[in-house]
Amino acid sequence: MEKNIPYKTYLEESEMPRQWYNVRADMKNKPAPLLNPQTLKPMTAEELGVVFCDELVKQELNETDPYIDIPDEIRDFYKMYRPSPLVRAYCLEKVLDTPAKIYYKFEGNNTSGSHKLNSAIAQAYYAKKQGLKGVTTETGAGQWGTALSMACAYFGLDCKVFMVKVSYEQKPFRREVMRTYGASVTPSPSETTNVGRKILAEHPGTTGSLGCAISEAVEVAVGSEGYRYVLGSVLNQVLLHQSVIGLESKAAFEKLGVKPDVIIGCAGGGSNLGGLIAPFMGEKLRGEADYRFIAVEPASCPSLTRGRYAYDYCDTGMVCPLQKMYTLGSGFIPSANHAGGLRYHGMSSTLSQLYDDKLMEAVSVEQTKVFEAAQQFARIEGILPAPESSHAIRVAIDEALKCKETGEEKTILFGLTGTGYFDMVAYQKFNDGVMTDYIPTDDDLAKGFAGLPKV
Amino acid sequence: MEKNIPYKTYLEESEMPRQWYNVRADMKNKPAPLLNPQTLKPMTAEELGVVFCDELVKQELNETDPYIDIPDEIRDFYKMYRPSPLVRAYCLEKVLDTPAKIYYKFEGNNTSGSHKLNSAIAQAYYAKKQGLKGVTTETGAGQWGTALSMACAYFGLDCKVFMVKVSYEQKPFRREVMRTYGASVTPSPSETTNVGRKILAEHPGTTGSLGCAISEAVEVAVGSEGYRYVLGSVLNQVLLHQSVIGLESKAAFEKLGVKPDVIIGCAGGGSNLGGLIAPFMGEKLRGEADYRFIAVEPASCPSLTRGRYAYDYCDTGMVCPLQKMYTLGSGFIPSANHAGGLRYHGMSSTLSQLYDDKLMEAVSVEQTKVFEAAQQFARIEGILPAPESSHAIRVAIDEALKCKETGEEKTILFGLTGTGYFDMVAYQKFNDGVMTDYIPTDDDLAKGFAGLPKV
Repeated sequence: MEKNIPYKTYLEESEMPRQWYNVRADMKNKPAPLLNPQTLKPMTAEELGVVFCDELVKQELNETDPYIDIPDEIRDFYKMYRPSPLVRAYCLEKVLDTPAKIYYKFEGNNTSGSHKLNSAIAQAYYAKKQGLKGVTTETGAGQWGTALSMACAYFGLDCKVFMVKVSYEQKPFRREVMRTYGASVTPSPSETTNVGRKILAEHPGTTGSLGCAISEAVEVAVGSEGYRYVLGSVLNQVLLHQSVIGLESKAAFEKLGVKPDVIIGCAGGGSNLGGLIAPFMGEKLRGEADYRFIAVEPASCPSLTRGRYAYDYCDTGMVCPLQKMYTLGSGFIPSANHAGGLRYHGMSSTLSQLYDDKLMEAVSVEQTKVFEAAQQFARIEGILPAPESSHAIRVAIDEALKCKETGEEKTILFGLTGTGYFDMVAYQKFNDGVMTDYIPTDDDLAKGFAGLPKV
Repeated sequence: MEKNIPYKTYLEESEMPRQWYNVRADMKNKPAPLLNPQTLKPMTAEELGVVFCDELVKQELNETDPYIDIPDEIRDFYKMYRPSPLVRAYCLEKVLDTPAKIYYKFEGNNTSGSHKLNSAIAQAYYAKKQGLKGVTTETGAGQWGTALSMACAYFGLDCKVFMVKVSYEQKPFRREVMRTYGASVTPSPSETTNVGRKILAEHPGTTGSLGCAISEAVEVAVGSEGYRYVLGSVLNQVLLHQSVIGLESKAAFEKLGVKPDVIIGCAGGGSNLGGLIAPFMGEKLRGEADYRFIAVEPASCPSLTRGRYAYDYCDTGMVCPLQKMYTLGSGFIPSANHAGGLRYHGMSSTLSQLYDDKLMEAVSVEQTKVFEAAQQFARIEGILPAPESSHAIRVAIDEALKCKETGEEKTILFGLTGTGYFDMVAYQKFNDGVMTDYIPTDDDLAKGFAGLPKV
């Protein structure tokens, strides 16, 4: 055990990033533009401004500025829970008996339980600055809704969350955290919107879906004076805000005099992975350094490893702009994989382009193997990880074990995006030995691809 | 806002305490000795060794050494989640518009969700060092059981937890965290022990109590080869381990050049409060500095503010040694206050003696006022606090508001012992406006006092 590297490295507050990093500025092949679903032409700032806050629209469309200032008000909030620690997993290394050096950036030490708060506070700030009354959003597993509730409580904004009905009923604790922060939480589909009523009429007794919740949230935002819609992943603006994860990681490594070889993150919509790798990818794009990047997705929802790179709808209601991305088709129904945050049919357009350009790898892993890694990690490193994060743990352990075989002393960094305190139903299934895996067949995938729009 | 004090102050790992501080060494009036419930004579090390680990018995009886080395193995584990941050509550100060400076020591950034892990890892270490196979314990709300499960997983010890049946059924998530860490969790009373079978025969359908769970855990420890019983609060050894909280706080304040005036902690069995105040109390006892110390307890279970200073049973089964302490009587049945960790009839003998010597104050607060403070704190400071911790928040806010009236610029420190992620049922009651208060009548208390042993 090298004793000169501490278990945890924290930056000083004065060393925290003052600017987010916009990786698109360094990409030769830019992500394809969002398209208006009616006209199939690129979305203008004006069109986007109906749904999103003005400043966030600017960030969404900004492909040229590599650095964007973080306003002081956001930095002050960041200081309440950031910098997050860069942790050397000494105990895990010892148990694996690997020559690899394993680090993780831990984003779970805040009440939202994940990295989602990094973008939620930014989006709430710009909404407040624009003089809005409030924002609407959807949430599935609940991390994003919780983060946004916290951010809105801080800035005194109203927060309307549409929560997928099955989660609303099965995760009452998440719901109560959001209510404690003053958010209104509506089970979706609901009788409060046109799209909700339509779906309820067509599918009585439905337990809802993320796609439907998005459509309800957008409808309310567009139809209410002083409201806009906000989203917790997929969008460029979200990856921009999440770059704080990678920037802090990079600064901490530089303090330690260490350079990672492999950087691993779980990938659902891509916000965590995109943020973690951004500044390292920038170095790679500029030819200043090389790294291996690995996106880890569930075998049950393999958008990068088995999806198509095509324009697709972001939501099932088809009210959002079309985005070019690796996708399984907006009609693809993921199985009840417990990593709710990774159960999305598409992927960030920025990450999709980087993957298509072979700048990043992707692997898919099965759920039971993921929970084996989660349990092992919890027992050794003392942190009970979120199922989403555990996908990255699985592959980090696998890479470390490969180093054991080859004798290579690689330095591995993975993103530990959050904690699993609200995921104990999934852990219980694993503890009871009744957790199963699901891998879609080619026929399953073909059905999803059949619904891709002709663009 | 003074910008020279950071939001969060972390010690370097090299600055973390290398010794625990034993406040009894500096007390003129020592806590009264534990008595054998049969002979009413002070418990010997030999007698205690039947139930507890040998090294822990030594620590329990040690009234002379002010400092006791923290073994490297324990310090290594501490490094995975410590040092914990000393946080300046800038946002809370601003909202309260108070000249007071508010700090809190946050112990919730670990998977057990509270400070309990500080002692659990020490107790597990000494059990392992003694060559034991495992340990037994009881848990009510589940924090202690979780912490012990984590500690035992780390050292490869078997861990048998008796969980009060009503919690076992109502808090399945806590139970699953313990199972994830490899502990066996048995609802108490159970058919697995004599005392459990006796209680079930006498009270069919009982939902259990902490006293019964203690008795079952002790019976299994004493009757099983290679097992001992461990306890998460009340005992001197536990306060010793928890002194790491106060030592880190004191070192951080010294780095900042700040001296607290008032130190506030919630008090159930006393482990958190005793640990937080220990080194500061040492200075006061040695005449080197003065501080105000405030113990905060629930109005529903007011052992310090309305109890008697007398010898009493620590458990309802009366198998444990007698302890002189502020107590409501072991037969006192606390109402269903949601701060499970504060629902104990007695108090650490060390804290009881310090309180009796007027070296510490105590106040009691009502539950609804506690949750008002919890909600306010969550929304402003971004951390959802445990109900137990929120008792300290309530009084810290009250003290800060007094400063607003008087214009005094006092420096307030309180212990934020943990997070409330597993307490959302209580938050839901508060959110729904159906939470009630309960203050025992003098008649209620008289019934408890009537059961005090004649010593």
